[in-house]
Amino acid sequence: MTEPVFPSIAIIGTGLIGASIARAAAEYGAAGSVNLYDVSDDVRQRAAGLGLGDVAETLQAAVADADCVLLCVPVGALAAVAAAAVPHMKTGAILTDVGSVKGEAAAALMAADDGRVHIIPGHPIAGTEQSGPEAGFATLFRDAWHILTPGPSTDEAYLAGVDALTRFWQALGSKVETMDSARHDRVLAITSHLPHLIAFNIVATAFDMETVEQGEVVKYSAGGFRDFTRIAASDPVMWRDVFLTNKEAVLECLGRFSEDLAVLQRAIRWGDGDMLMREFTRARTIRKAIIDAGQDSSAVNFGRNPHLDKETGES
Amino acid sequence: MTEPVFPSIAIIGTGLIGASIARAAAEYGAAGSVNLYDVSDDVRQRAAGLGLGDVAETLQAAVADADCVLLCVPVGALAAVAAAAVPHMKTGAILTDVGSVKGEAAAALMAADDGRVHIIPGHPIAGTEQSGPEAGFATLFRDAWHILTPGPSTDEAYLAGVDALTRFWQALGSKVETMDSARHDRVLAITSHLPHLIAFNIVATAFDMETVEQGEVVKYSAGGFRDFTRIAASDPVMWRDVFLTNKEAVLECLGRFSEDLAVLQRAIRWGDGDMLMREFTRARTIRKAIIDAGQDSSAVNFGRNPHLDKETGES
Ligand SMILES: NC(=O)c1ccc[n+]([C@@H]2O[C@H](COP(=O)([O-])OP(=O)(O)OC[C@H]3O[C@@H](n4cnc5c(N)ncnc54)[C@H](OP(=O)(O)O)[C@@H]3O)[C@@H](O)[C@H]2O)c1
Ligand SMILES: NC(=O)c1ccc[n+]([C@@H]2O[C@H](COP(=O)([O-])OP(=O)(O)OC[C@H]3O[C@@H](n4cnc5c(N)ncnc54)[C@H](OP(=O)(O)O)[C@@H]3O)[C@@H](O)[C@H]2O)c1
Repeated sequence: MTEPVFPSIAIIGTGLIGASIARAAAEYGAAGSVNLYDVSDDVRQRAAGLGLGDVAETLQAAVADADCVLLCVPVGALAAVAAAAVPHMKTGAILTDVGSVKGEAAAALMAADDGRVHIIPGHPIAGTEQSGPEAGFATLFRDAWHILTPGPSTDEAYLAGVDALTRFWQALGSKVETMDSARHDRVLAITSHLPHLIAFNIVATAFDMETVEQGEVVKYSAGGFRDFTRIAASDPVMWRDVFLTNKEAVLECLGRFSEDLAVLQRAIRWGDGDMLMREFTRARTIRKAIIDAGQDSSAVNFGRNPHLDKETGES
Repeated sequence: MTEPVFPSIAIIGTGLIGASIARAAAEYGAAGSVNLYDVSDDVRQRAAGLGLGDVAETLQAAVADADCVLLCVPVGALAAVAAAAVPHMKTGAILTDVGSVKGEAAAALMAADDGRVHIIPGHPIAGTEQSGPEAGFATLFRDAWHILTPGPSTDEAYLAGVDALTRFWQALGSKVETMDSARHDRVLAITSHLPHLIAFNIVATAFDMETVEQGEVVKYSAGGFRDFTRIAASDPVMWRDVFLTNKEAVLECLGRFSEDLAVLQRAIRWGDGDMLMREFTRARTIRKAIIDAGQDSSAVNFGRNPHLDKETGES
């Protein structure tokens, strides 16, 4: 990096995503200075201890000098945080977020608009099952998609803001895409929100089967169940907010999912092997498409068998 | 290894599991000689080319000298293969299998019983999403559970057979457990069969959402969906047979799953955030239990971020 994209940024909420942005911005020289704030005293102290940037004692102090303010709090907290931040921001500064539901995020940010700042909601398609400042790392956004959902303004200064924010995320290693927030929420409902809901649910079901002990579920989880428990370990507050704020799109996907599952259930009950074969064969092709698109590693079994490549040299 | 557990074994079906047994038996000295047979000319040739052992031209030739015959074919093929194998086996030899449904496997093997061989069904809780002989590797069974479901016989020779088969799997690196086949099928229905069905189903649902393009599903799959596609890439024939033969236990789990999902659906529809928080918090604990039990790697995000540990030294 020759010049930082923004002389100064402020990160509000220093959990997994906020801490990762702080580390990446410093590592790749995307920002001159990084100011941080978190509502929790404890988290602020841990963020300072990790050397993530200048940790401010108040939200107002953190945002005052920033050219770009990034809200990295759960979606349900965005409205309050945006309302508290905007009056203290510099005129012409950018206000963005990383929330997983963009309709709600846009509404929350727009409600705080006083005409002086550029509101450009965004969402990194990157994360892990961990949370908190210790979980952050600089390479989280590398080769990941970042979706911006800018407003309809064709104002020159606004478009320059969108351009700068795009370059900022590119400097962090992301590939940036723009779309409208309704489309974002429909796409993410099926690619992210429904998978998480299903994972949470199957874990609950397994817990409550009184015919099988919990210890056995854990012991024999290598049969497939463990794959689901990774995303079911994700932050409960974040996910509660996602489901409360992307209700319609999630319920639509869920309806489809249940309908499809009823068809498989019927095929099992009536022993319709041909139908099962057709569905399972179709499912197989999508893994290949995802690997070919660079959206997952080709490591067999998620790389859980470290000696695999060395041994056969084939797989 | 000082002495091989069996002077000679025969592996029928040289796909992922059969080829892995062949490689492991040779690597860890668990068998003196390894004979192989597969129904497919092409697979037999590939198995020979990979140097997996002595590939026979007929099933009869493969099993004739074996002290232990391991059937590694889809569950639906077990009955025919067992019936063809038993008359040509040595008196006192062991007949076992690796099928994922033990009630059905036991019935298939017992139907072929002529009183001369020891029938001891089994199931390794180890596998990958790949199939075919090229996918096999020697370390597949290391630290994995192997479940044996022996019959009720207290005959000394039979018990000695169970003991020898236990030592064979231990030599391959497995931890061996015995249980009755009904219990096995109930436990595996929730830890393996239901997760696979759900994974197949969510992939089908995503394919068929006409409001979202397939390309977008692939592109943004890092949001969670990709985790499900790994197990949905598993062999269709194998899984068809599992669902056709463990019908009752799978339908029972599926009923529970749908019931639990309806409760989550209602909580989303009515905005019951407390209920969602409770369920999601509970789900989080099981990941930790699985990692603590050594049943999955603790690598964040399935180790997809290779620079993670180097950078922060924390996570
Ligand atoms: N995790 C992912 O995979 C992922 C991926 C893409 C986008 N996102 C989005 O990123 C955002 C943050 O998620 P995360 O994973 O980084 O969560 P996280 O690790 O839990 O961090 C969120 C942080 O925000 C703090 N916070 C909550 N309310 C606040 C407020 N009013 N003012 C200031 N700070 C506040 C929290 O403090 P307390 O702990 O004290 O509440 C916490 O430290 C969410 O909107 C989520 O939708 C997450
Ligand atoms: N994959 C796993 O994760 C896993 C884990 C534990 C247990 N298992 C069990 O292991 C068994 C084999 O699975 P796999 O993953 O190894 O499948 P695979 O890679 O598809 O191998 C099965 C092999 O058996 C052959 N075969 C089919 N019918 C046969 C017959 N009548 N006589 C001889 N060979 C025959 C197949 O030939 P064609 O290809 O020509 O049909 C194929 O080469 C199944 O019972 C499965 O339930 C699998």
